[in-house]
Amino acid sequence: MTDQRVRLDLAYDGTDFHGWAVQPGLRTVQGVLEEALARVTRITVPVAVAGRTDTGVHARGQVAQVDLPAEVWAGLPGRSGRSPEHALASRLNGVLPPDCRVLAVSPAVPGFDVRFSALWRRYCYRIADRRGAFDPLTRRFTWWAPSMLNAGAMAEAAAPLLGEHDFLPFCRPREGASTVRTLQELSLQRPAPGRIELWVQADAFCHHMVRALVGALVAVGAGRRPVTWPGQVLAAGVNDPAVTVLPAVGLTLEQVAYPPDGELAAQAAKARTFRG
Amino acid sequence: MTDQRVRLDLAYDGTDFHGWAVQPGLRTVQGVLEEALARVTRITVPVAVAGRTDTGVHARGQVAQVDLPAEVWAGLPGRSGRSPEHALASRLNGVLPPDCRVLAVSPAVPGFDVRFSALWRRYCYRIADRRGAFDPLTRRFTWWAPSMLNAGAMAEAAAPLLGEHDFLPFCRPREGASTVRTLQELSLQRPAPGRIELWVQADAFCHHMVRALVGALVAVGAGRRPVTWPGQVLAAGVNDPAVTVLPAVGLTLEQVAYPPDGELAAQAAKARTFRG
Repeated sequence: MTDQRVRLDLAYDGTDFHGWAVQPGLRTVQGVLEEALARVTRITVPVAVAGRTDTGVHARGQVAQVDLPAEVWAGLPGRSGRSPEHALASRLNGVLPPDCRVLAVSPAVPGFDVRFSALWRRYCYRIADRRGAFDPLTRRFTWWAPSMLNAGAMAEAAAPLLGEHDFLPFCRPREGASTVRTLQELSLQRPAPGRIELWVQADAFCHHMVRALVGALVAVGAGRRPVTWPGQVLAAGVNDPAVTVLPAVGLTLEQVAYPPDGELAAQAAKARTFRG
Repeated sequence: MTDQRVRLDLAYDGTDFHGWAVQPGLRTVQGVLEEALARVTRITVPVAVAGRTDTGVHARGQVAQVDLPAEVWAGLPGRSGRSPEHALASRLNGVLPPDCRVLAVSPAVPGFDVRFSALWRRYCYRIADRRGAFDPLTRRFTWWAPSMLNAGAMAEAAAPLLGEHDFLPFCRPREGASTVRTLQELSLQRPAPGRIELWVQADAFCHHMVRALVGALVAVGAGRRPVTWPGQVLAAGVNDPAVTVLPAVGLTLEQVAYPPDGELAAQAAKARTFRG
C-alpha cells in the first residue's frame, strides 16, 4: 500500500518550546508532535513543516505534514464512524499539551509539499511601547519595548526593503543556501494606543530575518537611527552587526499560503530550484 | 500631615493567583501588590479594590487605591525630577512580577472611593467553541467549550436578564448583603469564527454572578436548556443548583467606570446605602 500524505494545521505558544526542530533532551514542537503521533498511530514517523520556528517563536498558522501508511490512515476512525481526519485531530489533541494544538487535519492533495509548495509565509511581530499597554494577558506573545516608538518613521524606513533583494544583511546565513527573498509586505498597524503590530510577508525567510528586519525598524522608531538606515544596510550587502535581532517573544507565524491544487507540484519544483 | 489617596490602574493574568484578597500562605494579587508597595515606600499600607476577583480571574481594567502619608507620596521622586505618580508606577513595575502590572498611577480627587464611587463594572467572558479556534496563545484567558454554541439563542436568552433584579438565583450570597443589582449589558459577539465574547456590565456584581449568568446562557447555546430557561431561573427567585458557574479562565474584568469628579462622594454615599 502507498502512503497517505496528511496536512496538519497547528498553533502553539512557543514560550516553553526550544523551537520547532527536534533536539536531544530538549522540549521542541516537532518532538512533542512526533511523540503524540506515535501514541496515536503506534508507528514512528517524521513530521515536516512549512516554517521552522526558533526557540520562543509562536505559531497560529503553522502547517506540517506527515506521510502515514495508507492502512494506518484508514484505521484511525476505529469504530467511531468519524472520518480519518476528524479522528486524528481529536486523538492528537487528546494527548498533546495545551500549548500545542492541532487546528485541522486534511489529506494532502497530490503534489503538495508542505515546505516547497508554499507561496508565502506571513508573520506578525507584536510590540507594546507604553506602560499603559503592558498587558500581562498578552505578555507571552508581545515584546515590551523600553521606549515609545515613532510608527510613522518606522513605516517610512520599511518602504525600500520591499521587493526581491539579497537579504544577507538581515540573515544568519546557512552554508550553500541563497539569501535572496521577495519581501511582499512589511507594514505597521497601531491596533490600540501603545501597541504596534508589524506584519511581514515573504515567499520564504532566512534565519533570523523577520526579527532582524523589525529590529532595524525599531532602531529607527526609537530615534537611534535615521529613517534611511535600514535601506542603507540592505544596499551595503553585508551582514551588519549593528542590526539587533529582537526577542522571540513578540513573533508569531500567522499564515502559510499555498497555490491552487493544480499548481502545487510546479510551485514546489520552482522553489526547490530557486532556494537550493 | 494628611494622607494622599492614590489610584492605581492594574492589569493581571489571574492564572497563577489565588484571587485578589490576601490569604495566608497563598499568592494573591493584593498580597503581591502590598509587598511591592512596602518595598517601594518602606511602609505597610492596605490596598482596596473596585472588583475583588476570584481565583484565576483576570483583570485588564482593575482599579485599586491606597492611602499614603503625604510625606511618603511627596518623597517618591527622590532626585529623579519625575512626578510622584510616574515615580511610583515605574518603581512598582520594577519590583512586581510580569503577571501583574501597574498601568497608571494618579492622585485621587477628593470624594473618590475605589469601591463605592464606581458607577459600573464591565467584564468579558471569552469562549472558543470550535477546534480551529483553540489558540494556545490565548488559552490563559479563554475557555475552550466542549461543543459548538448557538450564539443567536444565547443572545435571545440574555434579554430578560437585563435591568434591575434580585440576582440571588445567580449568586453565592453573603450574609446580610443585598443581591439586587442592575444589569446594564449582557451582549454577545463573534469576533472571529469559533470565538464568542460575552460582555457583561452592571453597577456591581455579587459573588460568582458573571460566571453563573454566562453559564446559564451556555446551557442554552449548547442546546441543553430552552431559551426561556435563564429568565425562568431569575423569576423563580431562589438559588438554582442547575446553574453552572463557568471556569474562571475565560473571565476578565475589563473596565470600572467612575462619575465626574464632583459626583464621586454622592455616588459613594448612594452605593453604600444601597448595597449595605
